[in-house]
Amino acid sequence: MVERKPSKIRPGTTPLRVKLHQIIFGADTPAGKAFDIVLLLAILASVLVVMLESIDEIRAEWGGVLWAIEVGLTIAFTIEFCLRCYSVQHPMSYVRSFFGQVDFWSLGPTYLTFLGFGSHALVVIRTLRLIRVFRVLELANYADEATMFVEALKRTQAKIIVFLVFVMTMVLIIGSTMYLIERNVEGTAFTSIPRSVYWAIVTMTTVGYGDIAPQTMLGQTVAAVAMILGYSVIIVPMGIFSVEVVAQRSDRKVLTKNCPSCAHEGHDVDAIYCKRCGAQL
Amino acid sequence: MVERKPSKIRPGTTPLRVKLHQIIFGADTPAGKAFDIVLLLAILASVLVVMLESIDEIRAEWGGVLWAIEVGLTIAFTIEFCLRCYSVQHPMSYVRSFFGQVDFWSLGPTYLTFLGFGSHALVVIRTLRLIRVFRVLELANYADEATMFVEALKRTQAKIIVFLVFVMTMVLIIGSTMYLIERNVEGTAFTSIPRSVYWAIVTMTTVGYGDIAPQTMLGQTVAAVAMILGYSVIIVPMGIFSVEVVAQRSDRKVLTKNCPSCAHEGHDVDAIYCKRCGAQL
Amino acid sequence: MVERKPSKIRPGTTPLRVKLHQIIFGADTPAGKAFDIVLLLAILASVLVVMLESIDEIRAEWGGVLWAIEVGLTIAFTIEFCLRCYSVQHPMSYVRSFFGQVDFWSLGPTYLTFLGFGSHALVVIRTLRLIRVFRVLELANYADEATMFVEALKRTQAKIIVFLVFVMTMVLIIGSTMYLIERNVEGTAFTSIPRSVYWAIVTMTTVGYGDIAPQTMLGQTVAAVAMILGYSVIIVPMGIFSVEVVAQRSDRKVLTKNCPSCAHEGHDVDAIYCKRCGAQL
Amino acid sequence: MVERKPSKIRPGTTPLRVKLHQIIFGADTPAGKAFDIVLLLAILASVLVVMLESIDEIRAEWGGVLWAIEVGLTIAFTIEFCLRCYSVQHPMSYVRSFFGQVDFWSLGPTYLTFLGFGSHALVVIRTLRLIRVFRVLELANYADEATMFVEALKRTQAKIIVFLVFVMTMVLIIGSTMYLIERNVEGTAFTSIPRSVYWAIVTMTTVGYGDIAPQTMLGQTVAAVAMILGYSVIIVPMGIFSVEVVAQRSDRKVLTKNCPSCAHEGHDVDAIYCKRCGAQL
Repeated sequence: MVERKPSKIRPGTTPLRVKLHQIIFGADTPAGKAFDIVLLLAILASVLVVMLESIDEIRAEWGGVLWAIEVGLTIAFTIEFCLRCYSVQHPMSYVRSFFGQVDFWSLGPTYLTFLGFGSHALVVIRTLRLIRVFRVLELANYADEATMFVEALKRTQAKIIVFLVFVMTMVLIIGSTMYLIERNVEGTAFTSIPRSVYWAIVTMTTVGYGDIAPQTMLGQTVAAVAMILGYSVIIVPMGIFSVEVVAQRSDRKVLTKNCPSCAHEGHDVDAIYCKRCGAQL
Repeated sequence: MVERKPSKIRPGTTPLRVKLHQIIFGADTPAGKAFDIVLLLAILASVLVVMLESIDEIRAEWGGVLWAIEVGLTIAFTIEFCLRCYSVQHPMSYVRSFFGQVDFWSLGPTYLTFLGFGSHALVVIRTLRLIRVFRVLELANYADEATMFVEALKRTQAKIIVFLVFVMTMVLIIGSTMYLIERNVEGTAFTSIPRSVYWAIVTMTTVGYGDIAPQTMLGQTVAAVAMILGYSVIIVPMGIFSVEVVAQRSDRKVLTKNCPSCAHEGHDVDAIYCKRCGAQL
Repeated sequence: MVERKPSKIRPGTTPLRVKLHQIIFGADTPAGKAFDIVLLLAILASVLVVMLESIDEIRAEWGGVLWAIEVGLTIAFTIEFCLRCYSVQHPMSYVRSFFGQVDFWSLGPTYLTFLGFGSHALVVIRTLRLIRVFRVLELANYADEATMFVEALKRTQAKIIVFLVFVMTMVLIIGSTMYLIERNVEGTAFTSIPRSVYWAIVTMTTVGYGDIAPQTMLGQTVAAVAMILGYSVIIVPMGIFSVEVVAQRSDRKVLTKNCPSCAHEGHDVDAIYCKRCGAQL
Repeated sequence: MVERKPSKIRPGTTPLRVKLHQIIFGADTPAGKAFDIVLLLAILASVLVVMLESIDEIRAEWGGVLWAIEVGLTIAFTIEFCLRCYSVQHPMSYVRSFFGQVDFWSLGPTYLTFLGFGSHALVVIRTLRLIRVFRVLELANYADEATMFVEALKRTQAKIIVFLVFVMTMVLIIGSTMYLIERNVEGTAFTSIPRSVYWAIVTMTTVGYGDIAPQTMLGQTVAAVAMILGYSVIIVPMGIFSVEVVAQRSDRKVLTKNCPSCAHEGHDVDAIYCKRCGAQL
């Protein structure tokens, strides 16, 4: 998620730059905190506008107002982007950072619409602005938690890949078997293997839309086995992840010191005297 | 949940008040236990009346009887409320407490109906009486368990907020993408972004109603990815909470010694010398 | 589950009784093992007959054959029941035991049908025979696992009751709110509070049939919140149970001995000499 | 899964054989890695062909091209199979190994189609090729993870069998009860016990298609209980598996010392004297 933290980018040297950097990238000063709150509200307002615009009745009546808000917010975000570039010593390394990219690309759609490229795809890109919310979180006290998640994910990556390959194989074989069983039934929904695999995923993740469901006795038996399998399989990633998080926690705990006098091990890191012989550590 | 425990409010000074307090707020005496059981049954009866009243056929035939029971129970609860106020030394601090508020507001709807404000919204407020069941539980042996839940929730709060922001972002981006893919299909159910986001939540929590389901190949592929993501994401809060509960348990277990010389706490049980001042324990 | 283990009932004193007891209640001898396997197959056959009988087409064609098998199996089970009574010293304490009761009541339905009470309810009681499978499992190596489950359940009982009360309150309040929101919509499925509460349970357990689903914007928003709540709430019993099972495991591990010479604690239970001073324990 | 690792089969003695073995069975040399990547892509292409062939529109237009790709890939896989046989010292032990069998049987369907046995069942067998992906994974760094899963599954086998028997009993009894309640309702979907059991599985695994759903008040109440039961029961295998994985991890961590005098193993790292014979460690 957080490839490069823009807050690590050194502020410019002039007092104005330093001041701006404190306000925009920091959250320690009252001005910095106020800026973060305003930014958070602006991002949420911007996403809300995208959502409301997509409802036909609302666009028909309030389309003009929504577009005005959107233009206003885009201008504000553009100014913010320029100020961010100005306040850091190396603007390009900010622009190339993860959050710099998100900031940049979430401005594009509105400007492209000005130029006449009024596609719906551009609207969706605007929802990417929501990712910017994470920057505000990062400045708050939630950075540690986010880092812990990312760390735990990295360490379980190999296991999760093995697990996903296993699930994919299972889903494909069950989907194909189901296609074989149900494809000749009158009015079947299992019309092809990809569709049957889609059904298998819908079933084994326990989502169960019901738009595709087996009708034959044999099909329902296979479906029942698939459900119980899917239900049991959920335990696998759970176990993996839990172990990793617990391990991370206990790894942090096990830092100990040895006594130089009697060599007794396992003293707490904050111990001053050996708890066995009383010698100074 | 439990902002202020009314049972902590000191009883009045006259013998009658003390006696009443024992019966109403306590569960140690036979009278107190009997009171709790009667109260529990009255609350359940009251909620059952609300539920039965909402069924048209039952209201048509038994409406009068149900209303009579409701009026009777409300009068009983009013008397109980007055006795609670009388038996404590500081009635206002009881009324302002969490359970005092629940007691007060769950009486309101019936009286408002007497005054002619016969709205259905009032009926629903009456179901809030169920929260009063927790008071009875608290008096029983379940207080510790409830406290443990609340504690664990407080300690995982920050992580759960980060997690919910992440889920919300994911749900919004997947919902918007789906809207883009499916909105032009004949008879699509993805008519707006809010509706598509609703579908994304229904899918990623594995509820899967099936009232909105993708019809195109591409839409089904994105849906399949969303399901597997939602299915994997369930592990995150699980891991967090488990670790917290396990940590709470082990924190309680760590038996430690205090130093008689410097009063430093937290020595291991097998320590012979204080790790801070070197004095013999 | 296992209130009283019939296998604990002392065998009769005559050699025949002892022999019979070994075969019927034990699984150590080849004859005992063979008996268990035959019994397991007979139980499964009996349940299969009940299931097949309920399918109209199969009953129309094979009804006579199925009835013959059922009568045969019932006679065999009756003989088995009599032999069990004969082989134990105190037949009544066997009959009054949990498995004795299951054995007895699962014979009843077929005999009642002979006497002309041919109800469908009796058919369902016959499926209770499946519980007898647990007796065979108990004789195998699975007794420990089953006991561990029962133990963990007993220890988490209080917490699970608190949790269920909490879930019930949540489900009732969300169901009532939904009834208030959706009840006036054209063709609504939220016709009463009990039905809305049913919907809330279907939703919050992530089952999601889709026979009842919100149609208004507000209803869908409340539903989305309910889903995420239900999805998060699943972590609570998980955490409780995991902690309990882990605790059970570690409790078994922590048995240690103290040294009588130097009083050093924490020796393994199988230690003969003190690992600190070398004195015999 | 991995009954016999073919990579353990000793390579042939001639330099060509050794070289081939390195490339085909190993992943340490650049040639070996390249071979693995090509094989992985070929397997995925082959499975994709099976999936596309099952879509009527695509087969109508591209059927010839897909069949050509399939024939080409089958010939390539046949050559690969022969080279594998040639490069190992004991070809038969390779053929008899788990992956040897998968390699062999996934070739069959295409050749049988050449001989005129053009059944759809053969198509599905071709999807078994996906299992071959695991061989490539095994050569990579994922072997440990896969082994850990298999180990944890083996150790929890007994508990999982007890759990599945319990779930099966519960599902059968709830299904039968539901059949009894709902079978006389107009237009019921609960037409037989097997169908009701299917519904019980769909419900208790929280899949919830909605093709079969209770209509009576009593039926919905039983269904609600079944859902909450199913929802709670998910914790059982979770707890079991987590404990096992955590145990595996901690078992590996416990560093111990051996006694130089009596060779007794398993002393704590801080032990000074052997706990079995009293000799100094």
